[in-house]
Amino acid sequence: MQSFIEEEEKTYEVVPFTWPKGYKADGVYVGLRKNPEKKDMGWLYSEVPAQAAGTYTTNQFQAAPTKLTKQTINKEHLLQGIVMNTANANSVTGKQGMIDALQMQAWAAEKMAVDSDLVGVASTGVIGEPLPMNLIKKGVDKLQLLDNFYVTEAVLTTDKHTKTISTQIELDGQTVTISGFCKGSGMIHPKMATMLGFVVTDAKIADGALQGMLSQEVDSTFNQITVDGDTSTNDMVVTMANGLAGNEPIENDDSANAQTFLNAYNAVLTQLAQDIAADGEGSTKLVEVNVENAANHADAQKVAKAVVGSNLVKAAIFGEDANWGRIIAAIGQTNAQVDVDHTSVWLNDLPLVTDSHSADFDEAVMKQTLSENKITILVDLHSGNATGQAWGCDLTYNYVRINATYRS
Amino acid sequence: MQSFIEEEEKTYEVVPFTWPKGYKADGVYVGLRKNPEKKDMGWLYSEVPAQAAGTYTTNQFQAAPTKLTKQTINKEHLLQGIVMNTANANSVTGKQGMIDALQMQAWAAEKMAVDSDLVGVASTGVIGEPLPMNLIKKGVDKLQLLDNFYVTEAVLTTDKHTKTISTQIELDGQTVTISGFCKGSGMIHPKMATMLGFVVTDAKIADGALQGMLSQEVDSTFNQITVDGDTSTNDMVVTMANGLAGNEPIENDDSANAQTFLNAYNAVLTQLAQDIAADGEGSTKLVEVNVENAANHADAQKVAKAVVGSNLVKAAIFGEDANWGRIIAAIGQTNAQVDVDHTSVWLNDLPLVTDSHSADFDEAVMKQTLSENKITILVDLHSGNATGQAWGCDLTYNYVRINATYRS
Repeated sequence: MQSFIEEEEKTYEVVPFTWPKGYKADGVYVGLRKNPEKKDMGWLYSEVPAQAAGTYTTNQFQAAPTKLTKQTINKEHLLQGIVMNTANANSVTGKQGMIDALQMQAWAAEKMAVDSDLVGVASTGVIGEPLPMNLIKKGVDKLQLLDNFYVTEAVLTTDKHTKTISTQIELDGQTVTISGFCKGSGMIHPKMATMLGFVVTDAKIADGALQGMLSQEVDSTFNQITVDGDTSTNDMVVTMANGLAGNEPIENDDSANAQTFLNAYNAVLTQLAQDIAADGEGSTKLVEVNVENAANHADAQKVAKAVVGSNLVKAAIFGEDANWGRIIAAIGQTNAQVDVDHTSVWLNDLPLVTDSHSADFDEAVMKQTLSENKITILVDLHSGNATGQAWGCDLTYNYVRINATYRS
Repeated sequence: MQSFIEEEEKTYEVVPFTWPKGYKADGVYVGLRKNPEKKDMGWLYSEVPAQAAGTYTTNQFQAAPTKLTKQTINKEHLLQGIVMNTANANSVTGKQGMIDALQMQAWAAEKMAVDSDLVGVASTGVIGEPLPMNLIKKGVDKLQLLDNFYVTEAVLTTDKHTKTISTQIELDGQTVTISGFCKGSGMIHPKMATMLGFVVTDAKIADGALQGMLSQEVDSTFNQITVDGDTSTNDMVVTMANGLAGNEPIENDDSANAQTFLNAYNAVLTQLAQDIAADGEGSTKLVEVNVENAANHADAQKVAKAVVGSNLVKAAIFGEDANWGRIIAAIGQTNAQVDVDHTSVWLNDLPLVTDSHSADFDEAVMKQTLSENKITILVDLHSGNATGQAWGCDLTYNYVRINATYRS
């Protein structure tokens, strides 16, 4: 997996994927998916109760497991485990859906030997079908507390591969590990939340600080990706911090320790968000849009997301066609402050539009750079000095194929 | 061309396409398009100055011809002609773009022997390339004041066919004709305007009433269609009413004459809007979404447009898959008031979701109805008694193909 993180800003080390101190996990196949080669149920466990924080979909049809996890975390902001399944979202399943989510939570808690109020539940897959509880029971019976990474496979749907990252920092002489994994790859247009994302750390976080850290970092990472403009009913990101690294408690403030932690934490969220965008359904290219000289940060974020979310821009990138009028049209659709006579655009650092006129570019050179598997679009709005960033992917025949036949 | 207008509400007659009294037109090929079989420049003319109204794109990068037509109409709300071209949008072309639009207007006005201030200009096609003025001049030289309908071809881009409709009503013993034509078929997500649409009538409209009539009818017609969520830089709808039918002036009020006129006028706009949706780039099906029992009209319109605009819903319809979770997810993404426990959905009148649970439907029957070329989705929000409507199309391989290779 290619790393898209810039080298120069690192105050942390990206290490091979590993669980932080005190975490166990497992993943199994129980028959929820058709392919027995793929895991479809898993869990994650901390030896001690961990501080927990979450962000959740704003879709009004919030799925039962998403609601339940939110309620659970909001009780004491503590979790000791999360149980997960794919292939069935347990969403729009009425009262039975909540009963099933509670049952799944209870079974997992019993097997982990912890209180139900310390266990989150996450489901993803088809909406509107009842959760097959016999398979869920079978899964809990099979799951063990191990050191493997199968849980990172057990949450995937149309994803082509797992999405994982671990970073390490030194705090107070202790090694602190932050590990995250997530799934995409359609119905991706997070609003104050995202698809399933899990970030666990052994860092000791000061009481009450974790939720603020998660919320602020999600805004500039998961909330800035889009695959298809559709917001799922099951989106959530959950973070657990069990404190076993032994560092002094980290506040959400300007201290050196907090900044070091947040830097590494942001890198984990950014990498996972980019991984989702790069592996968007049917995608062949990751698209990153950077906006600069915006009137304010909100404008910059809005324009970045509008460009990366435009079907026409996405199809042109798939076709490797430097059709910049579509980028300009996408910018102009927003209500962001735009200097319509002095907007400039670069594509992989090559000038494409200069002061709202076609830059004198060589079509062959553009075609060549568009054949790369990461496309970076830089937009200068000439309206201030704020910046923003968003990620997405191209729109391809395969996106249509996957979504025309999703249930078959 | 199939008519989607319901039979029972007609207070007007749909007649074979014709120009209303006093209108002349023409369309020619000058080399803007590659295929010499297709017209690429045209115009429309009224023997007497006609009252005029327009609605225009809200894209911040408004094209020169769109700006110029808006300025021209806003002077005295009168037009006598409109000159049009396809294959080049004269958009994001800087100062030269406005100079070229003014020149095109002046040449057409001179040939029509009317004042420049009475001539609108409309361009569509690729963004960002200078208008080839030698070809525009050649076109104006060739255009004549005739009774043919070639102008309805001369505005098309990726459209598969022309989009035209004529209705007739009787007012004060006089026959009044309302004729409209338009083009699609990508970058369609009108906001307070639409792609190019032209509606001409010989009705006599009271001074100052036409703009209000157009604006109110566009809101529930053109503004409720989406093909791909992208708003063009060149969108506009222009209406001309030259009064030659001889009826008494129609006010925009509750009078019988006004209601008869507005009914027929709305039918023209509705048919054109549906034609654009049905002929959306790559589409194989027209999708109509009707929302009922919403808390208010704005909520109903918002939900209708969210469902019809969802890439996932569109791809599922292309795949003829009754994947209703995507419809529910699209509804829940809006901030409309939704009774999340009592939302129901019908597909071509067959129950799909009842009170937020899967209706006990037969997959084979659903598959059969999804093979039709018009798909109607009815959503009951259980939150009030307001209704709304929107139109779109499915998302297909051909949409991707067309837009991956648009400039080639």
